[in-house]
Amino acid sequence: MEPIGRKRWAIAEGYIPSQSSFADGALISHETACILNAGDKEARVDISIFFAKREPITYRVTVAARRTLHLRFNDLKDPEAVPRDTDYSSVFESDVPIVVQHTRLDSRHAEVSLLSTTAYAEA
Amino acid sequence: MEPIGRKRWAIAEGYIPSQSSFADGALISHETACILNAGDKEARVDISIFFAKREPITYRVTVAARRTLHLRFNDLKDPEAVPRDTDYSSVFESDVPIVVQHTRLDSRHAEVSLLSTTAYAEA
Amino acid sequence: MEPIGRKRWAIAEGYIPSQSSFADGALISHETACILNAGDKEARVDISIFFAKREPITYRVTVAARRTLHLRFNDLKDPEAVPRDTDYSSVFESDVPIVVQHTRLDSRHAEVSLLSTTAYAEA
Amino acid sequence: MEPIGRKRWAIAEGYIPSQSSFADGALISHETACILNAGDKEARVDISIFFAKREPITYRVTVAARRTLHLRFNDLKDPEAVPRDTDYSSVFESDVPIVVQHTRLDSRHAEVSLLSTTAYAEA
Repeated sequence: MEPIGRKRWAIAEGYIPSQSSFADGALISHETACILNAGDKEARVDISIFFAKREPITYRVTVAARRTLHLRFNDLKDPEAVPRDTDYSSVFESDVPIVVQHTRLDSRHAEVSLLSTTAYAEA
Repeated sequence: MEPIGRKRWAIAEGYIPSQSSFADGALISHETACILNAGDKEARVDISIFFAKREPITYRVTVAARRTLHLRFNDLKDPEAVPRDTDYSSVFESDVPIVVQHTRLDSRHAEVSLLSTTAYAEA
Repeated sequence: MEPIGRKRWAIAEGYIPSQSSFADGALISHETACILNAGDKEARVDISIFFAKREPITYRVTVAARRTLHLRFNDLKDPEAVPRDTDYSSVFESDVPIVVQHTRLDSRHAEVSLLSTTAYAEA
Repeated sequence: MEPIGRKRWAIAEGYIPSQSSFADGALISHETACILNAGDKEARVDISIFFAKREPITYRVTVAARRTLHLRFNDLKDPEAVPRDTDYSSVFESDVPIVVQHTRLDSRHAEVSLLSTTAYAEA
């Protein structure tokens, strides 16, 4: 497939609640960046996390060719975990075109809340 | 009406929960791609579904001129059903301009959660 | 203020549930198109509603200069009400730049669900 | 990092419910504009709030270099508070590129509802 997407994306909203009403992994409060690499080359993606009161942290993930990665920010560990209960934003810089969508599942209460938006793509 | 939209769209987020709290069709957990064809020619749309761990599958739908199709991914059957409880992304390739919006209704619990976003449009 | 926005917008998703759990107007299930006219001239906006199985209907609204209109599709009456429990899409054509955002409040159950997305803007 | 974003943004939807079911600050009904300034210069951002029936009000905020600001409209006080239970829209004008995302947490009922969307960016 002809590549689709952009190389630079941003999600201004970010917040991982430390609380969850569920033990089931699928329903634990989480923030997800869904990353589609529809092209024929592996994508190397640098994710920079920006905070209100400290310098950014950068993570590296890869997404195989013709694959999707639903990345939970909760799972980022290296160089350090993303702090809970803390406002953040994220910027994605890929070496090939990708598509990025942001989703949050919030289960601080027994009722699950969802939000999602296509990220901002740099033209 | 002068055509509105683009020919290539992507939705990075996709996930159909296998569980629902309701038997009522309108409230069964589902993922929807709302496709508007505001123009005067039928749209032939190829939908490629990308996964984390296998090659993509391609479906074909048509949307009549001056009509909307609220397509439930749950209903795609040919060449095979979209697997449940599995992360996916989707790419839409149409022969005429269309507009695509993504919506999920999640009723794994008695409380219904909704998310929606305009899909990514390739410029 | 320098005008901001576009003249043509589309919202592919549309659905007004006929049911609500609340009598309070603010909490009755509704679909809203928030229309911002930040410029110094009144906006005349034609809204065409597209369906799955019939020809579109066109409505006309105006938004005063430097004003916002949070238009409930529920309130459109002329030439006819928007049918309930029916899939639709909408296209907005304005004579001056506007910004359009789509929101749904769903109160079919006692728990309120919300979704929102910036509409698709024709470049 | 190379700057990312635009200088003008708009959020057509805005509404702060006066009611909340929670005393916990994180769960009080609120509207948030998440503003990312990924660049190396402080951003000065003018936020104009537009209403249905009165002239706009303008606020000024700053976002430090390489920082994010999750701004609650509830907290804007100068020249006056944003009225509750009132429809509004907002326009952001920054002197450097920023990224803006809109989120609402609605806790009028015990169940929390969330919505979010990337704002409209002026090309």
